[in-house]
Amino acid sequence: MAVATQSLEELCINSIRFLAVDAVEKAKSGHPGLPMGAAPMAFVLWDKFMRYNPKNPKWFNRDRFVLSAGHGSMLQYALLYLTGFDSVSIEDIKQFRQWESKTPGHPENFMTPGVEVTTGPLGQGIANGVGLAIAEAHLAAKFNKPDAKIVDHYTYVILGDGCNMEGISGEACSFAGHLGLGKLIALYDDNHISIDGSTDVAFTEDVSKRFEAYGWHVLHVKEGNTDLDAIAKAIEEAKSVTDKPTMIKVTTIIGYGSPNKQNTAGVHGAALGGDEIALTRNNLKWEHEPFVVPQDALNHTRKAVERGAGYEEEWNKAFDSYKAKYAQEAAEFERYISGKLPDGWDKVLPTYTPADKGLPTRKHSEMCLNKLAQVLPELIGGSADLTHSNLTEIKGFGDFQKGQYENRNIHFGVREHGMGAICNGMALHNSGLIPYGATFLIFTDYMRAAIRLSALSLAGSIWVMTHDSIGQGEDGPTHQPIETLASLRAIPNLTVIRPADGNECSGAYKVAIEKSKQNDPSLLAFTRQNVPNLAGTSIEGVAKGGYTVVDSEGTPDIILIGTGSELSLCVTAAEKLTSEGKKVRVVSMPSTTIFDAQDEAYKESILPKAVTKRVSVEAGTSFGWHKYVGLEGGFVSIDRFGASAPGGVCMDKFGFNVDNVLATAKKVLG
Amino acid sequence: MAVATQSLEELCINSIRFLAVDAVEKAKSGHPGLPMGAAPMAFVLWDKFMRYNPKNPKWFNRDRFVLSAGHGSMLQYALLYLTGFDSVSIEDIKQFRQWESKTPGHPENFMTPGVEVTTGPLGQGIANGVGLAIAEAHLAAKFNKPDAKIVDHYTYVILGDGCNMEGISGEACSFAGHLGLGKLIALYDDNHISIDGSTDVAFTEDVSKRFEAYGWHVLHVKEGNTDLDAIAKAIEEAKSVTDKPTMIKVTTIIGYGSPNKQNTAGVHGAALGGDEIALTRNNLKWEHEPFVVPQDALNHTRKAVERGAGYEEEWNKAFDSYKAKYAQEAAEFERYISGKLPDGWDKVLPTYTPADKGLPTRKHSEMCLNKLAQVLPELIGGSADLTHSNLTEIKGFGDFQKGQYENRNIHFGVREHGMGAICNGMALHNSGLIPYGATFLIFTDYMRAAIRLSALSLAGSIWVMTHDSIGQGEDGPTHQPIETLASLRAIPNLTVIRPADGNECSGAYKVAIEKSKQNDPSLLAFTRQNVPNLAGTSIEGVAKGGYTVVDSEGTPDIILIGTGSELSLCVTAAEKLTSEGKKVRVVSMPSTTIFDAQDEAYKESILPKAVTKRVSVEAGTSFGWHKYVGLEGGFVSIDRFGASAPGGVCMDKFGFNVDNVLATAKKVLG
Repeated sequence: MAVATQSLEELCINSIRFLAVDAVEKAKSGHPGLPMGAAPMAFVLWDKFMRYNPKNPKWFNRDRFVLSAGHGSMLQYALLYLTGFDSVSIEDIKQFRQWESKTPGHPENFMTPGVEVTTGPLGQGIANGVGLAIAEAHLAAKFNKPDAKIVDHYTYVILGDGCNMEGISGEACSFAGHLGLGKLIALYDDNHISIDGSTDVAFTEDVSKRFEAYGWHVLHVKEGNTDLDAIAKAIEEAKSVTDKPTMIKVTTIIGYGSPNKQNTAGVHGAALGGDEIALTRNNLKWEHEPFVVPQDALNHTRKAVERGAGYEEEWNKAFDSYKAKYAQEAAEFERYISGKLPDGWDKVLPTYTPADKGLPTRKHSEMCLNKLAQVLPELIGGSADLTHSNLTEIKGFGDFQKGQYENRNIHFGVREHGMGAICNGMALHNSGLIPYGATFLIFTDYMRAAIRLSALSLAGSIWVMTHDSIGQGEDGPTHQPIETLASLRAIPNLTVIRPADGNECSGAYKVAIEKSKQNDPSLLAFTRQNVPNLAGTSIEGVAKGGYTVVDSEGTPDIILIGTGSELSLCVTAAEKLTSEGKKVRVVSMPSTTIFDAQDEAYKESILPKAVTKRVSVEAGTSFGWHKYVGLEGGFVSIDRFGASAPGGVCMDKFGFNVDNVLATAKKVLG
Repeated sequence: MAVATQSLEELCINSIRFLAVDAVEKAKSGHPGLPMGAAPMAFVLWDKFMRYNPKNPKWFNRDRFVLSAGHGSMLQYALLYLTGFDSVSIEDIKQFRQWESKTPGHPENFMTPGVEVTTGPLGQGIANGVGLAIAEAHLAAKFNKPDAKIVDHYTYVILGDGCNMEGISGEACSFAGHLGLGKLIALYDDNHISIDGSTDVAFTEDVSKRFEAYGWHVLHVKEGNTDLDAIAKAIEEAKSVTDKPTMIKVTTIIGYGSPNKQNTAGVHGAALGGDEIALTRNNLKWEHEPFVVPQDALNHTRKAVERGAGYEEEWNKAFDSYKAKYAQEAAEFERYISGKLPDGWDKVLPTYTPADKGLPTRKHSEMCLNKLAQVLPELIGGSADLTHSNLTEIKGFGDFQKGQYENRNIHFGVREHGMGAICNGMALHNSGLIPYGATFLIFTDYMRAAIRLSALSLAGSIWVMTHDSIGQGEDGPTHQPIETLASLRAIPNLTVIRPADGNECSGAYKVAIEKSKQNDPSLLAFTRQNVPNLAGTSIEGVAKGGYTVVDSEGTPDIILIGTGSELSLCVTAAEKLTSEGKKVRVVSMPSTTIFDAQDEAYKESILPKAVTKRVSVEAGTSFGWHKYVGLEGGFVSIDRFGASAPGGVCMDKFGFNVDNVLATAKKVLG
């Protein structure tokens, strides 16, 4: 199978290379270097190993492919085109990186069927791959029978030097090694070049040894540009090791074939230019016009269509007999895949009255999670080593560990960023799983890139964040969120909810579960400390984002807007103000995200324009609250870092008490 | 030196243990486990090796100590108390974790002299340690003479399992190995317990092998609870290897001495409780009352005071003879340490008129950096592998590499988070260095925890962020900041500046350099694309945060508020509106942070309350702009994710054009 001039393999591989070269040249933007160097490994993988159906990119049992080095997106678009996916035509490739094209700058799963996850921010893809492999392992353990393996696919990842430099990849790969995810196979495009030039300037560690330290099976293809047999042999060997993930270091030359630019940073992220392209065509004996793929190559690569139809048909038959034998499991499997929730699932969510004992909202979260876990077997997740602080254990469902993949409590370790991308990968397995990941709210800062990608790439992860204010207490300002809620509310398409009590916690989970099934993430913020159950709060109210919990007769003089642990301060302050003859409305605003999405009439009914005297009360920054309070209102907020002291002391010292709410309200009332 | 009953060493070590036990018990909050297990290594380090002067915690040539496992803060407070630092008395220890005490929940350099950096968020400390070691290596290479080593100290770090799980530590340690930082010595408290229990549940990699892969010198002390000789021998050996950093794995038992809780997660983060404390006292034969340190122990540990005075005196003498021989270098060294800027340094900053050719602001940034590098030799930094996109190379000053530590261009690799904490470490070396770190603005998401810590811990890092909007173009939504500026502006004490043109770039650097010397960080956001030089912009204007660049006669009908690349849209729109008879003011708002800090009279002069018709124009989210625009204004903003297309197309499609600014203004005008 070694490349000889004009061999069919060479034709196919050069087709990939020149589609990348030509598309980047036309766009005058993009990254030709990686596709040129990684084309051989990608071709071997997609041609000899990967099982997928180009005409049904969502076929459940397909092998998952992730281009973690997402800047090399033309590699993936070339593969999709060559193997016959409808999503990428040659015209689409000509529209590389143009407005609304199917071939954006980096692979985007929401733009291009056949792309599994959104990559580009380095290291995310390999961590998503760990999540995909976890999903596969879990579903296989749950649904497979000794005589019927209906869940049985590999996850393949191509990653580069950049991915391997990022901490997130280290976190995720250490965890994958711990879990022994044997069906995760990563091909490391070891081309020794990053944007700043040779990796010698910054990255001289022994990557293979590091992966061995993680417990991976590690292989090396020394001649990744031409030695297709060695690539195939390595993938075979990787598949044969079933109790460890495999990393295949494939040494390549970036921009392979470009006489003057290969093996330089110059070919990483810029068009080759006409002259160099001519030289490259000559060098690789490529006589075809731009965007022309020789028919022999296309005839070969398009065999994937028939092959893929066969795979799916075979699987469909297997599933039919599974269904015949295991009707109940098959029905559940089909429900998973459909993304539907079981009827009446939300009936398990508890409701409360003010007579019920006050608890920390993290405790309410724990109760919701445990109730939901009973009726939603697809709920699976855990904490980044704060299980008993976040209260995220779902009791009775065991720890997800090597060989115990049917279990549903995942111990992510102190790896917030890895956890984020792993949850996203599980969500983007698109098999109905509802993944959740937990840490302290402040440590969303460690995983923000993954949270953002959940919102961008339509991954229905649920982020469970506790210790949501200075009420956290003694751990001090390093652990106390101030600006954190604001910074998260600013992310498009992320639903942030900070419930005030038991009812609102149930409401928060109702929204989050429904959103997850619509492929949208939610972030829930819970207190460490006790809060009372209030009159007027409701599951339905949370679904509106903001709603009135205490009202006056007639137009209010003032509106107090509270969230989370501060809502009760508003309620008490309102009582006092009312007793003094003021007309006061209290609005609970668990989610500005949801409130903003309501129609104008609803918003006007809660925050009438005529009532300009408003006060927001939240143990966090005032940043962002002017939108609801206006320029004439007041803020009970903290616009500096917190301090180490018992939580109650912090709250009081920083003015989160009824007296200060009253004082602020009176100042606004004038 | 092995521990025998009642040996002096044991007395000292148990003094540390019980100070931690008693302080956590009194506070009913904190982490006794780490101090109890790590006390032996910490005692040996501080007693036999570390050079510091308790009576002058800022003595320049002290060894730096970082407790990366910051939750074990009582270890550090005990050491500070025992060795005679004035910052921590026994009364302070009794106030552990209380309001305004010197002994907050996690070590905070801004609260407690003797604490070098702020730790707690895991992994930050070891990465700060890499920064401290870089600072030492750089200053040594710059100032030392063959006959006079005035810069010559070690950086010691104690880190735990949690730190080692975090990606940031991997990034920083890989880089430290690459750089061969021989004077960085990390002691890994290998206690096999994290909050979720045994590290077996999530963390089973071979950490030592991983560090070897990074190019570190790796040692192992198998009996870290009792074998003080082995600890001392390992530190000796670490010091003897000068071309590699050393990681000493010290296997310990968390909560050593507690009969029922040691070696469990129960002792990690909670008070032992009275009964268990009694058993622990009995077990360790500790007959002293809470907070009582035996005089023999104190007599011994307080020898550090005399020893430290001697170290400083010796160094002062050495510096005096250095000064005599190398007057110019000594003067420069003294200027560094003083934190003063050279006279007239800011005169090099260029100014522009509208006749000057428009350039991307990242290009202006490059020119500022290069001008400043000539007059500010303490300016040192680089990019996370985007040097030629961020345009952050300071030409002629060489690459900071192993054996070339005098150079000033640092290639951080694709390690944004590590870069952030490393810059903070360099800043907190408190030797006058002005560190800068660069990447694309969107990737602040990868390093947000470090940026936040720069603001909290008074580290004067400068964050140079380019590609600051959808104007970034083809790379698409994964690379286009939308909510990023808002999320950064929300961080207390972080000065965010988005300059509009050449003058404002100079103004931004003037602020950032001055702030750095005041130990405050700044974040500068620059465009990828060209912007014109505008009339009315100025260095002085930036220093006010917001200022008028175009004004009407008399009270304006409307105020257009623009930042960065959108300011020119406001100026052009104002011209058209003016020609239509409207009175229009244009306010440039490069920094809401700085504007907010102005007095009310100034703010009123720029944004008079009476003018309620206002429009903000920024290629980012509207989140946060209501504070300046109010509820009656308009927003030219993008409140969704971007798209892959040429930058100009993105800007236009999303409404960042004069027509849309005009249309929005007219709608507001009614």
